[in-house]
Amino acid sequence: MSQKVLFRQLFEKESSTYTYILGCKRTKKAIIIDPVDLTVERDAKLLKELGLTLVKALNTHVHADHITGTHLLRAHFEGLQTGLGSANTAKSDEKFDDNFKIEVGDINLEVRHTPGHTNGCVTYVDHDGGAAFTGDALLIRGCGRTDFQEGCSKTLFKSVHDRIFSLPEDFKIYPAHDYKGQTSSSVHEEKQFNPRLTKSETEFVDIMENLGLAYPKMIDKALPWNLNCGVEPE
Amino acid sequence: MSQKVLFRQLFEKESSTYTYILGCKRTKKAIIIDPVDLTVERDAKLLKELGLTLVKALNTHVHADHITGTHLLRAHFEGLQTGLGSANTAKSDEKFDDNFKIEVGDINLEVRHTPGHTNGCVTYVDHDGGAAFTGDALLIRGCGRTDFQEGCSKTLFKSVHDRIFSLPEDFKIYPAHDYKGQTSSSVHEEKQFNPRLTKSETEFVDIMENLGLAYPKMIDKALPWNLNCGVEPE
Ligand SMILES: [Fe+2]
Ligand SMILES: [Fe+2]
Repeated sequence: MSQKVLFRQLFEKESSTYTYILGCKRTKKAIIIDPVDLTVERDAKLLKELGLTLVKALNTHVHADHITGTHLLRAHFEGLQTGLGSANTAKSDEKFDDNFKIEVGDINLEVRHTPGHTNGCVTYVDHDGGAAFTGDALLIRGCGRTDFQEGCSKTLFKSVHDRIFSLPEDFKIYPAHDYKGQTSSSVHEEKQFNPRLTKSETEFVDIMENLGLAYPKMIDKALPWNLNCGVEPE
Repeated sequence: MSQKVLFRQLFEKESSTYTYILGCKRTKKAIIIDPVDLTVERDAKLLKELGLTLVKALNTHVHADHITGTHLLRAHFEGLQTGLGSANTAKSDEKFDDNFKIEVGDINLEVRHTPGHTNGCVTYVDHDGGAAFTGDALLIRGCGRTDFQEGCSKTLFKSVHDRIFSLPEDFKIYPAHDYKGQTSSSVHEEKQFNPRLTKSETEFVDIMENLGLAYPKMIDKALPWNLNCGVEPE
């Protein structure tokens, strides 16, 4: 990570979600990526201890496995703006078009639309720090499922190859989840060792169509809440 | 972390243990700190994918909550040397005296004896990378218990203050465990916000004497195995 940016990775164990904090050391303004409702108190406390003011709470996509913490974080940080890719119908203060540049103090993130797991997925790329926050598009030695939320395995294959694997080989990959205790990877590693995305498009589509995954536990609650910025819908 | 060193943090969820891999990019030799038996296959696979040869498997102390993976790692990496602080009676290829310098390629670690959680605890300090692997001596906003394995709260207080809090403020703290999804901290943060170690010695001793913790589940199995380098005792 860039020397100008304070970086912290945090884990929420119910949904095995990673939340990321990036804080500008100069302006003390911060961004959080993929906060979870259950760990908002922990995250808000840490931000305050670090002397950071949270100005943006971003999601990589509308999550189906947990409720976003964006709404609850507002109670801790006045003026907080929520953000999401523009291909989403969910409520959000900001909707980012493809290639949009987010600037918060010395933190710079490029938004890359990486649909496929959901139609609205984005990857936030930190070019200065050499890192990509890939959400569920690219996981460590895996990827998000493509069988709901307008998911499409062909689209995901293209997103990962064109928009993530095209980054420099040494860029770190920070996913939204890991279920095996892995905390990060690199573009190089995933291009070489991802068991799904090293395959041809046809083989990839075939793998994704035959995962035989169970219906997601949380989806019926999480989706309507997350489409409403983490607030219970009326 | 130093640009010369490939660094990876890994989590084992049964015991909430962090394992760390440091790999020299030049010589491709690697060190692992606090490996767990249950995740040896994952760790060995990752090391091989990264093109690394594991030459040292170190423990910060004789763990009571999990069985060390050192012995099982030998099956994957011939000539692997195990290491532990010299104040331990456990079996180990190397026993490090206080201030001993471990060198593996471009990886340099200083061994600092930091007893108190157990009498044999050490902290491995990476001065180039600005990081300390503190085991259970210093946890994020916490510390290891001091009621077994010749633990002593007065000794722990002195170890943390003299040997860890004396490091530069921006040094990262990588503990052996975290139970709240936190992955790292800094000397600065723990000096300011650790709820136990910001107290006076008398208050600290009082806190540690009144934790009222349950008898550790794994200790009766883990200790004899770990005293035997992770092998079932005869
Ligand atoms: Fe997802
Ligand atoms: Fe311990």
